[in-house]
Amino acid sequence: MFIDDTIAAIATAPGEAGIGIVRISGDKSIDLTDQIFRSKEGKKLSEYKPRRITYGYIIDPKTDKRVDEVLVSYMKGPNTYTKEDIIEINCHGGMIPVKNILELVLRMGARAADPGEFTKRAFLNGRIDLAQAEAVMDLISAKTEKGFDVALNQLEGSLSKKVAKVREILLEMLAHVEVSIDFAEEDIDEVTLDFLLEKSSEVEKDIQKLLDTADTGKILREGLSTVIVGKPNVGKSSLLNALVRESRAIVTDVPGTTRDVIEEHLNVKGIPLRLIDTAGIRETEDVVEKIGVEKSKELFNLADLIIVMLDASRELMEEDKQIINLIGQKKALIIINKTDLPQKLNFEEVETIIGSKKIIKVSLVEEKGLEEIEDALVEMVYQGQVRAKDSLLVTNIRHKNALERALESIKDSTKAIKQQLPLDFVEVDIKNTWEALGEITGDSVGEDLLDHIFKNFCIGK
Amino acid sequence: MFIDDTIAAIATAPGEAGIGIVRISGDKSIDLTDQIFRSKEGKKLSEYKPRRITYGYIIDPKTDKRVDEVLVSYMKGPNTYTKEDIIEINCHGGMIPVKNILELVLRMGARAADPGEFTKRAFLNGRIDLAQAEAVMDLISAKTEKGFDVALNQLEGSLSKKVAKVREILLEMLAHVEVSIDFAEEDIDEVTLDFLLEKSSEVEKDIQKLLDTADTGKILREGLSTVIVGKPNVGKSSLLNALVRESRAIVTDVPGTTRDVIEEHLNVKGIPLRLIDTAGIRETEDVVEKIGVEKSKELFNLADLIIVMLDASRELMEEDKQIINLIGQKKALIIINKTDLPQKLNFEEVETIIGSKKIIKVSLVEEKGLEEIEDALVEMVYQGQVRAKDSLLVTNIRHKNALERALESIKDSTKAIKQQLPLDFVEVDIKNTWEALGEITGDSVGEDLLDHIFKNFCIGK
Repeated sequence: MFIDDTIAAIATAPGEAGIGIVRISGDKSIDLTDQIFRSKEGKKLSEYKPRRITYGYIIDPKTDKRVDEVLVSYMKGPNTYTKEDIIEINCHGGMIPVKNILELVLRMGARAADPGEFTKRAFLNGRIDLAQAEAVMDLISAKTEKGFDVALNQLEGSLSKKVAKVREILLEMLAHVEVSIDFAEEDIDEVTLDFLLEKSSEVEKDIQKLLDTADTGKILREGLSTVIVGKPNVGKSSLLNALVRESRAIVTDVPGTTRDVIEEHLNVKGIPLRLIDTAGIRETEDVVEKIGVEKSKELFNLADLIIVMLDASRELMEEDKQIINLIGQKKALIIINKTDLPQKLNFEEVETIIGSKKIIKVSLVEEKGLEEIEDALVEMVYQGQVRAKDSLLVTNIRHKNALERALESIKDSTKAIKQQLPLDFVEVDIKNTWEALGEITGDSVGEDLLDHIFKNFCIGK
Repeated sequence: MFIDDTIAAIATAPGEAGIGIVRISGDKSIDLTDQIFRSKEGKKLSEYKPRRITYGYIIDPKTDKRVDEVLVSYMKGPNTYTKEDIIEINCHGGMIPVKNILELVLRMGARAADPGEFTKRAFLNGRIDLAQAEAVMDLISAKTEKGFDVALNQLEGSLSKKVAKVREILLEMLAHVEVSIDFAEEDIDEVTLDFLLEKSSEVEKDIQKLLDTADTGKILREGLSTVIVGKPNVGKSSLLNALVRESRAIVTDVPGTTRDVIEEHLNVKGIPLRLIDTAGIRETEDVVEKIGVEKSKELFNLADLIIVMLDASRELMEEDKQIINLIGQKKALIIINKTDLPQKLNFEEVETIIGSKKIIKVSLVEEKGLEEIEDALVEMVYQGQVRAKDSLLVTNIRHKNALERALESIKDSTKAIKQQLPLDFVEVDIKNTWEALGEITGDSVGEDLLDHIFKNFCIGK
């Protein structure tokens, strides 16, 4: 890994704004900036104390032309984000100044930073572990308060500490196992077996507890992808518009992964809802008519949650039944709309077909039942889990996978101990558990994986 | 004007990025931040020296919850942007942290800053004059290097100094006039008349010289709005695509002021070209066919420059002639494309119709002539004006208007002096000139105008 050079990038979002920042990290940060910065007092940056903000101009040394009026912050490693010397050049916002200053910094010998490379260095230089590094990007891309809180918690090391604690137990187990192997001639004593069994099951429980939070964590991080289906005119667009109205966050349309699918990001009581909007539910009511059952099936595969809307004023039709049958084991919410009109829907029939899924009766026209829908969404995400204020949640699919592998290995270990298999087997299982958990914090991790993780970061972080 | 309170705003562009900044300015900046900031060392901001960067956490004092990990910069007035105490809270980029920190700062008693209010305070507190304040926004919204340079020049006071110099002359004239009025019984002596005439014509020339830069300045600031017209298949989209390829800046589509009109921002050799793209020239060649002569007329009104494309391999048609006739006194460039094909166009006929407009013969297929087109565009913008490296240019329509009024008044003054009218008349003209020039630097300016100027700023600057 090549971390001897000095890197630079624009650290603020593009756009017209008051402030833009070019960030530099590495041994040459200060020397390099001194070549292009003229402080008002005429002093070199190295003559100032670190952590000081200095006013002056960025100058192109070749032409002596003023590039911009700036404030330069100079932070001396190792007490910095990357543990290296860091310079932040705080210039005017907008396209030209940040671009020109970055170009100049690169000309002075810095290398353009890869996505997430500052954070990668913070990890490689040992300031934070991998789970903390991943939390940084989650902080930046968080769509709701709760998602942000969970990420901040992770950045502060809550997950890392828990993982470290479990790994300590595993080390303790390994020590016992190794001692026993050294005396392999003798039978393993009862005390050691009991100890190993107790610890093994303790580890199993700890890992399982973490895994139990993964579904909720994933939703808080990535959003609950939701599809609304139902016959034309049942009130899909009314529901969507009502949710948008209630949404505390700004609604943004982003291109989805699939053609013809737009995702709308809503914030329903802290739950990030990624509403999969097919060909604009908002414009037309004819989604099912348009997309048919085949397309519905595809959409259902994309969704974490399916909201099926039925019409209380009409009888259940073949189409409704087909849609309900498609749900299968997926999470679903059945909303019966138009309870203000004379009832024709056979509720008992609906209940029989849908099984244990939750039903909510509403009248969107009369604005009745929306609160209940929102509460049901929140309930579904947390699945009855206690919502502690700073609960530790596993939000990252990579962490989840590592935990699943760790769980499998520790279960193998428990089994081997119970069957009194040779301790060599037990040792391998414990080591595997230990290593799988180590992937989370980056104690055991390859460069390929690092590249994969950091390439999803934004540049300048 | 209400500048006793403390204001706050997000100072970075929205978006996922490494850094986001909340900026606070006013008497209470430090006290207010001390309520929500916990430094790593446990000290209050006021215990640190100013211009220092301090690491710590923003805490919601009501819930004691950590809001984000931050670096806080604290700058003590009057050596700051606004001349007031300024705090910059440097937090994680992304939607949630900046929003939450701003909300917290407002809850602690700051007021949400209006657009440009930090810069407005810099002006009201006397750190910069109005022309300099306006340059700040030009810096941020500059689309090309040259536009940025001119704005930076203006921020550094080049225009202000020039205006101040002219106003000094006017004051000198006023002093002479007033002395002469006090001795009104006597005839005005020859020497005074000569002096006034000489100074009056000096001021006239200075103002005229500034005004001569206004067209170029406006284009550098706002871009040269350009329309490409011509028959279907003449090569309009080829020209556009070639210009885009050569363009050094990122091409962005922004919604235009008129429906169905998209503006594309190109950077042609430092000239910001605002290409008015009608219903997507790039997709279709049938623009004229589609929009017709009537619509062309409308577009011509929007444009600073019209590029008419003719086909060398076809005869001049009635439609071509109609379009050429529409140009009138507008700046135009005639491009004859397809010189690689057998010629059918009667060049002499074209020359007769278009008069003195510039003609360039090209073959876009063979990539011949593009350089010549670009040079012609640059030439047109500068109109033969010397392109000094740091030339002083009037870029702002408001300044241009003020200069025009000043010019009118000083001409009146010259006339009055020549006609030996009573000096009271001359005095009024000189005072009017002085005041019109004062509007540029904001020495004589009303609150309405200030509001109008700063409302076009971005928030956070």
